[in-house]
Parts: sequence; C-alpha cells; structure tokens
Amino acid sequence: MKKKLDGINLLYPTPTTIVGTIVDGKPNFITIAHIGIVNHAKPYLISISSGKIHYSNAGIKENKEFSVNIPSEKLVVETDYVGIVSGKKTDKSGVFETFYGELKHAPMIKECPITMECKLYDTYDTPTHDLFIGEIVETYADESVLTNDKVDIMKVKPLLFDMSSIKYWSIGEAIASCWNVGKQMKKMA
Amino acid sequence: MKKKLDGINLLYPTPTTIVGTIVDGKPNFITIAHIGIVNHAKPYLISISSGKIHYSNAGIKENKEFSVNIPSEKLVVETDYVGIVSGKKTDKSGVFETFYGELKHAPMIKECPITMECKLYDTYDTPTHDLFIGEIVETYADESVLTNDKVDIMKVKPLLFDMSSIKYWSIGEAIASCWNVGKQMKKMA
Repeated sequence: MKKKLDGINLLYPTPTTIVGTIVDGKPNFITIAHIGIVNHAKPYLISISSGKIHYSNAGIKENKEFSVNIPSEKLVVETDYVGIVSGKKTDKSGVFETFYGELKHAPMIKECPITMECKLYDTYDTPTHDLFIGEIVETYADESVLTNDKVDIMKVKPLLFDMSSIKYWSIGEAIASCWNVGKQMKKMA
Repeated sequence: MKKKLDGINLLYPTPTTIVGTIVDGKPNFITIAHIGIVNHAKPYLISISSGKIHYSNAGIKENKEFSVNIPSEKLVVETDYVGIVSGKKTDKSGVFETFYGELKHAPMIKECPITMECKLYDTYDTPTHDLFIGEIVETYADESVLTNDKVDIMKVKPLLFDMSSIKYWSIGEAIASCWNVGKQMKKMA
C-alpha cells in the first residue's frame, strides 16, 4: 500500500560535497549535497545547486570557477560546520588547508581525498537557486584512496546526505556489478 | 600525496533510479543514476540526464511527463536489466507492474518503494545529453518503508551507483546529524 507524501523530493542519498570559491579575495567553503551529474565523458559536466542568498554564489558568478571536494567520514564535523556558518559573517578560509591546480579561483581542500576543479560552464537560473553547471578541468585523488590506480569508494568513505533523516550516512557493501547482473533476464526473454 | 586523474567525474555514489515514460503508447523504463537535485521546496525540481540516443527521450519530449522510481536492493536484477536493454528493440512494458497518479504519461513502478511522478519543467540541452528537469507532482512511498510517517532510508535500501567500481552499493550506517554535528566548531570559534 502506497502513501502520498505531498510531492516531496525523495531523491536521496547524494554525496555531500564542499564547494570552494574565492569571495572578496579569500577562500570560502560551503557544504552542498544538492548536486547533479550531466554526463560521464569529456567535457565532464556536473551541477551544484545553491540558494541565491548564499555568499559563495557571488564568488562563482564573479570568477566563473569553483572546486568540488568530497570529504570522507572523518571530516564530518568540519563538513557540517562550513554548511551552517555563512561566509558573510564568518571567515572560513582557515578551516581547511588549500591547494590550487590550473585555476586561480578554485581553492581545493587538502584534507579531502577527492577534489575537482571546475570552470563555470553555465548557470541555470531558477526562482530560488542558482544551478551552477561546472566543467571539470582536473581531478585529484589521494593515493591512499586508490586501488590499482582507480578510486576505491570503500577507501574514500564519502558522507551520504539524506533529507528525510537529516543525517549523514556511510556507504555500505557492494551488491552487484552494473551492466552485468541484469543479463540473466536477457537470457530469459 | 594527490594524483591527477585527467579531469574524470568522481561525484559518486548517486541513487540509482528507474525512469518511467510512455513511448509509442507503451510504458518504457530506463535505469538512470546521473540524477540531480535542484532544490528542496515547492516546486520540487530534480534532474535526470539521458543520452540523446535513448528511446525514453522521445517519450519525455512528446508527453512532457515521466516518473522517477527508486528501486530497493532486492530489485537489482530488474533494475540492471532495464538499463542494458533498449526499448527500441525490446518491449520492457511488462517488466514491472505499473500504477498511475495524476499524470497519464508517467507510469510508476509498484515494486519500487518510492516513486515520484514529474511534469517536464524544462530541458537543458547539451551536445550529447538531454538534461530533463522535472517538477515533482506527487510522491508515493510504501507504508513498509515509513517510520513515524517519514521515509526511513534504512528500510528503502536504495541501490547506490558508483562509476569507478561499476557496482551497485548499499547504504551503510548513520554517522551524524546534519546542521548539528558541526556546531561544536562554532563554539570553538
């Protein structure tokens, strides 16, 4: 038996990211789990959605660059902190150690095992949110999260965001191989 | 020490969905994990990205309606199957039992614990993909996945998609409360 839930968005969990920008000349960070994937081929396009009131938005609009950093479980306190304190009132530039790649306005977080520096590809405007579509220029991964030169999600230990529970969740176990486990139905058909 | 990974998209895992459409008068289903969230307020906007070659795209463009269904772990074979077989060649209308809500061209899947029927809000065009932005009209949840009238993600058991491992993953354990665990840093500042 299904129950109606008034059209609520239940498209969770999503990976929690920390978006890095330069605002008023200083690095700023904001937690964003309302992310999106456009494709998985060059140019790699991803989206982040940020309410128009946020301090970070001005930096992205001005510099047309930002970083998307994936924190691991052990960064849960810092990750949550940069999501509840606004850069308008609090200088968050010292919360993390930063490094830069090819772009000058996309501060990346050393403590995050995965970081992506993005050029602003486009902004999709909505009444309340700026949907920033980024083109990934370069991606960086800690060697400690690689297995045979590929990113090992079990080592990354991302923080998964769920809006119903308002909690961060860990990733569990591998269930099956994609584009493979369904082949058994193909044979039956 | 960080290693460069040639700008690859590592924004994973994402929830695996099955998108339902009407194409050529029949229900069709496709697996999509390249999803996105625009906001969490009415109108709730979410995105799904589908390569232009897909059969489902024509149905969405024609009818301007689709459903987003969240399968649980036990549906992994069927979920994978509808992602590897094209509706151009194979009739997938009988893979799942369907039901309809307010929209006539958004077939929802009875076997999925969470379903959302969407009106097409807009299409963001890219060279290779149609990014369909949907406005959720109504959301349905199995009573068996509710705890105190709220969706309990531990009961939903979503299939999380990761592109590095090319595997479906389960959700793990709750780590901490959002907009809360970071407050301890606020006191320190």
